[in-house]
Amino acid sequence: MSDHRSSLPIVDFRSDNTGRAAPEIIAALAAANEGTAAGYGGDEWTALLQRRFSELFETGVRVFPVATGTAANALALAALSPSWGAVYCAEQAHVNTSEANATGFFSGGAKLTLVPGAHGKMAAESLTAALATAGIGQTHRSQPAAVTLTQASDLGAVYSLDEVRAVTALAKAHSIKAHMDGARFANALARLGCSPAELTWRAGIDVLSFGATKNGGLLCDAVVVFNPDIVPSLAVQLRRAGQVWSKMRFAAAQLIAYVEDGLWLRNARQANDIAARIAAGLRDLPGVAPLAPVEANEVFLQLSAATMDGLEADGVRFFRRPGNIARFVCRFDATPAEADALLASLRRHLAAAGR
Amino acid sequence: MSDHRSSLPIVDFRSDNTGRAAPEIIAALAAANEGTAAGYGGDEWTALLQRRFSELFETGVRVFPVATGTAANALALAALSPSWGAVYCAEQAHVNTSEANATGFFSGGAKLTLVPGAHGKMAAESLTAALATAGIGQTHRSQPAAVTLTQASDLGAVYSLDEVRAVTALAKAHSIKAHMDGARFANALARLGCSPAELTWRAGIDVLSFGATKNGGLLCDAVVVFNPDIVPSLAVQLRRAGQVWSKMRFAAAQLIAYVEDGLWLRNARQANDIAARIAAGLRDLPGVAPLAPVEANEVFLQLSAATMDGLEADGVRFFRRPGNIARFVCRFDATPAEADALLASLRRHLAAAGR
Amino acid sequence: MSDHRSSLPIVDFRSDNTGRAAPEIIAALAAANEGTAAGYGGDEWTALLQRRFSELFETGVRVFPVATGTAANALALAALSPSWGAVYCAEQAHVNTSEANATGFFSGGAKLTLVPGAHGKMAAESLTAALATAGIGQTHRSQPAAVTLTQASDLGAVYSLDEVRAVTALAKAHSIKAHMDGARFANALARLGCSPAELTWRAGIDVLSFGATKNGGLLCDAVVVFNPDIVPSLAVQLRRAGQVWSKMRFAAAQLIAYVEDGLWLRNARQANDIAARIAAGLRDLPGVAPLAPVEANEVFLQLSAATMDGLEADGVRFFRRPGNIARFVCRFDATPAEADALLASLRRHLAAAGR
Amino acid sequence: MSDHRSSLPIVDFRSDNTGRAAPEIIAALAAANEGTAAGYGGDEWTALLQRRFSELFETGVRVFPVATGTAANALALAALSPSWGAVYCAEQAHVNTSEANATGFFSGGAKLTLVPGAHGKMAAESLTAALATAGIGQTHRSQPAAVTLTQASDLGAVYSLDEVRAVTALAKAHSIKAHMDGARFANALARLGCSPAELTWRAGIDVLSFGATKNGGLLCDAVVVFNPDIVPSLAVQLRRAGQVWSKMRFAAAQLIAYVEDGLWLRNARQANDIAARIAAGLRDLPGVAPLAPVEANEVFLQLSAATMDGLEADGVRFFRRPGNIARFVCRFDATPAEADALLASLRRHLAAAGR
Repeated sequence: MSDHRSSLPIVDFRSDNTGRAAPEIIAALAAANEGTAAGYGGDEWTALLQRRFSELFETGVRVFPVATGTAANALALAALSPSWGAVYCAEQAHVNTSEANATGFFSGGAKLTLVPGAHGKMAAESLTAALATAGIGQTHRSQPAAVTLTQASDLGAVYSLDEVRAVTALAKAHSIKAHMDGARFANALARLGCSPAELTWRAGIDVLSFGATKNGGLLCDAVVVFNPDIVPSLAVQLRRAGQVWSKMRFAAAQLIAYVEDGLWLRNARQANDIAARIAAGLRDLPGVAPLAPVEANEVFLQLSAATMDGLEADGVRFFRRPGNIARFVCRFDATPAEADALLASLRRHLAAAGR
Repeated sequence: MSDHRSSLPIVDFRSDNTGRAAPEIIAALAAANEGTAAGYGGDEWTALLQRRFSELFETGVRVFPVATGTAANALALAALSPSWGAVYCAEQAHVNTSEANATGFFSGGAKLTLVPGAHGKMAAESLTAALATAGIGQTHRSQPAAVTLTQASDLGAVYSLDEVRAVTALAKAHSIKAHMDGARFANALARLGCSPAELTWRAGIDVLSFGATKNGGLLCDAVVVFNPDIVPSLAVQLRRAGQVWSKMRFAAAQLIAYVEDGLWLRNARQANDIAARIAAGLRDLPGVAPLAPVEANEVFLQLSAATMDGLEADGVRFFRRPGNIARFVCRFDATPAEADALLASLRRHLAAAGR
Repeated sequence: MSDHRSSLPIVDFRSDNTGRAAPEIIAALAAANEGTAAGYGGDEWTALLQRRFSELFETGVRVFPVATGTAANALALAALSPSWGAVYCAEQAHVNTSEANATGFFSGGAKLTLVPGAHGKMAAESLTAALATAGIGQTHRSQPAAVTLTQASDLGAVYSLDEVRAVTALAKAHSIKAHMDGARFANALARLGCSPAELTWRAGIDVLSFGATKNGGLLCDAVVVFNPDIVPSLAVQLRRAGQVWSKMRFAAAQLIAYVEDGLWLRNARQANDIAARIAAGLRDLPGVAPLAPVEANEVFLQLSAATMDGLEADGVRFFRRPGNIARFVCRFDATPAEADALLASLRRHLAAAGR
Repeated sequence: MSDHRSSLPIVDFRSDNTGRAAPEIIAALAAANEGTAAGYGGDEWTALLQRRFSELFETGVRVFPVATGTAANALALAALSPSWGAVYCAEQAHVNTSEANATGFFSGGAKLTLVPGAHGKMAAESLTAALATAGIGQTHRSQPAAVTLTQASDLGAVYSLDEVRAVTALAKAHSIKAHMDGARFANALARLGCSPAELTWRAGIDVLSFGATKNGGLLCDAVVVFNPDIVPSLAVQLRRAGQVWSKMRFAAAQLIAYVEDGLWLRNARQANDIAARIAAGLRDLPGVAPLAPVEANEVFLQLSAATMDGLEADGVRFFRRPGNIARFVCRFDATPAEADALLASLRRHLAAAGR
């Protein structure tokens, strides 16, 4: 059973969540399925998860497995912001566009405040301006509480370490907290070649939404907390949100397998490489260029409706966005053949349009 | 790896969530791990899940997989109650004692109103009295919105069909909705021997928290909706709550496997049988009797601290509750040997106490 | 214009809020209506209010005028409790019975937990028991956050200083905060004859809902904060709740006039005296006795429906409650003639019923 | 007592809420202070208020007095939007800039979505674009729920009837509701010269925040509901919000007096006239021009810091906003002499700067 037409090869760029799970992760579930284990995270797998991630991030962290990235983002931000807080994010940020008011809901009313910038990234200068006019201490204004960076960005670009640090320095200067939405954290890390620690707490991040699902995970992401102050309230908020599995060992086992032997970075590199292959091929196609640097596993193009129709007729799957934008996301299990099929189809329909 | 002392045989009655997952469910995950699939429930497995459960319940239902029973309960009740609503529940109900205000939180303030009754069940006469003095239509009072029944109850008893119908008739007469917390729905069903339809919508239930985790499931429960009016708002509330997996096929596959070929009822019968074996053994032990009829997979006993210490010293695992109450929960994979070990240990320590 | 039949004398025990405002308070509004004044509490009247109340309470307090007692209670409790908190109250407490989930709403989900006791008061022993089984530190349980005492109680009794201290000592021992719902604070104070300080912060109260409306006020109650830690978050929550008048001078002027020259205590004594006159008269009426000691300005009686019908036919106004309970509340401007008319009517109808 | 230096004449443009109350309104309070009256709006004044406003608006309306404009706005919008809704407003709208997340809070998470436009007004074309990309029916997006227009705008301009209708036609076409924030409704009405009905329900408005405080009111604004569907849920939400006074007669009496014999429109014309006098005077001052048409009682100017310092040194009171913006608001009791003093001071300091 699968939802594509079986007679055609898969050319599927709809999302990284249309892909499979890494077989290692399913194997880890089977391996964890022995004996009994204390519920709600009192088990040995969850204890091991804390140790593995603390080694990985080179500091003592607290890892809370959660079902989805929306849960990770909204609950992390709710732990950082009071209900009268302002949370600064890029305009294209997933928390703003795609989570149905989850941040406002879980925080009891916190307001997302949009900060302009290029390529789906918040510009530090824009954040400076926003904070300067925020009315800190005035009871009729939302009070600055947190900033959230999407890494990689929602247009497929990646914040450099300096860009992250510029934002978190502003946060620290205004006594607000910094969150990173790492739904594609592994893709950004693979791009930058730095360590997980460098990209997070050493760069001033208090809490990370650690994505696994989009990169070969199964049913589990995580909140990774660097700032211990928020752990107690976050723990009870997660429990209340129905995000604490009673059979937690099976969530912990997924995340342990995900980072074991570098699986997560291998997966991310595969996805990034396919995106890079597409970007390279686009250089030969006149009149079409990515809307943002292709630095992770996504390519955004502005295409005519006719061209998009043509791609679809060829069996290329992708999502259309307002403004004639086509989004192509590379799965960890995408193949070079898919990239080449996309490029070939694109070349054909662009040429037809150009005649 | 497991969290018991490996040199001893397992005698673990801490909870049904300390048990394994049924191997069939893990196998189903592996089988679903091929090709690509649309995200967020747009896939073929989720479509099949709707059909299978509609057959199972003999009516068109909408099934929403969720991570936990707390999520199922709180979001179902939030879909039934406005923020100024009153939700009637038994005093021992899990929604009241063990979900950290989740119902109040997800509904924006709805108030749980406790209705007395025996054996963890709400008595219809008590609900009648509560509704009679609720102040319907008075703006300074919480307004009756829903009633929730825990089936099986949180003391291990089971509502008869007549008992369910008596409560839902009152709900209907007062234009409020009826929810069933079916964390142990299969155990109750196995006990009653009726059909899923008879125990739910035919008995007046609008929405069911369908538990799987405690009965051999892995990481997934569900909300099953019989009343189509609440589907649209529930759908967006689930999405906002971070309870909609992007790789939903892997959740749907679990639930399909759970009910395939009667797996769920076999598991439930196994767990119930172990509890019945304990209850039968208790009849020979003077001075100790279950606090409620043992009708599902739980046994509650009032024991002296010394007796509980003795059980623990023998390696029997269980949870203590306030008031010298010991809770023994039978897993789907519990064994007759565990029951017999419990009874032997209990006999020994009761006798010692009696000397 | 008034809503009683003008041909009959007023015999109105419906509530203390059916009464007039003290003329001194309306005069104070007129006096404050000169020149311009900074908005939102930046004016001189509001500054004076802080000083007057600090003198009155013999410590530096922060006074926030609010529109209603419900606002005072719910916002004070929301400042004391996180959304996952438990707030302990007497079963008959106004916050539980008459504020339409306001505490749950403003706190984002905090749960009122009912503590038994006689005469509408919480018994310290019952609170001890409730806290002992609260599951402090367990993420699946509401976490104890605050206790609230209604003074005078919702059955017309008054907590002694020792009773207040017994509850607040428990609160302190469990690191939770103590709130007093003083909708009838002046009535309790007049009864006890102690100082405002003795009944509040010296007895361990962190924050007080200071009622004025029921006791000759006009449109304004207040939150009086003794614990400075909660001031900043309460200030923004009040602003967000639409409880900060832009022309605050007119609210402050009411409260200043209310306590000027002991007006509030004179009013309270008048109301209490009428209630005492009724209670004294009841001693001569066989078969009817107040449900709680008449220690403030309310009398609760259990009467037959026929007797209540008879009272109403005589033009006596009062409210009926479930369980054949009649509530008689004495206004600050109630008269001895009203009390006597009630007693005469009652005597007549009780005698008729006794025949 | 007043907060200006008494030796100087008042030149106070800080806000319209620094002004006095109309003496007629205080007189009305005194007149209402006789006899007893049913609580919580069950009195004769509140009944009369419904009739008077229904006559005024030429249709049956429901009027709910509330303490503040923030309460009116947030509760009206919470009655129009589910917690997952999007509420469209102008960027400068008071609900966005000055109410500390109240809309998000009272609605349980609804998101304000900013719509560009000139002079503090939302442009219908921008709203068209925003609705076109809103993702209606997609569960991961906020769902369009309501639009709110500030009349007069927060930059002192006024929506024409055609401009209002263009926005409400879009609302109707998308099945969303229309709210008007009428904190300065009387000022806009006085400007347009149309009837209250024409500017509201006949132009497609469902609910109006009816401001009185800024225009000679005392302590009371109102929600005026044209769409009866929202009345029941709004009523309970107001009660729960602590916005229903028990002595409601004193709120109703204020609002009755406010519209009696055209008091409200007289007050508004006085305030508008002072603003017009300033605007006329500005035409003679080179290099300074209002940021938006002066159509109500506010004037916004961009001035150098030195000029603003000079004004303040002369005793002119006003508020500074980010971006070197000075706001001058004319009270209903502002005088031509104040306008002339402002103009003279401004002329002097602008000339000094120009030397």
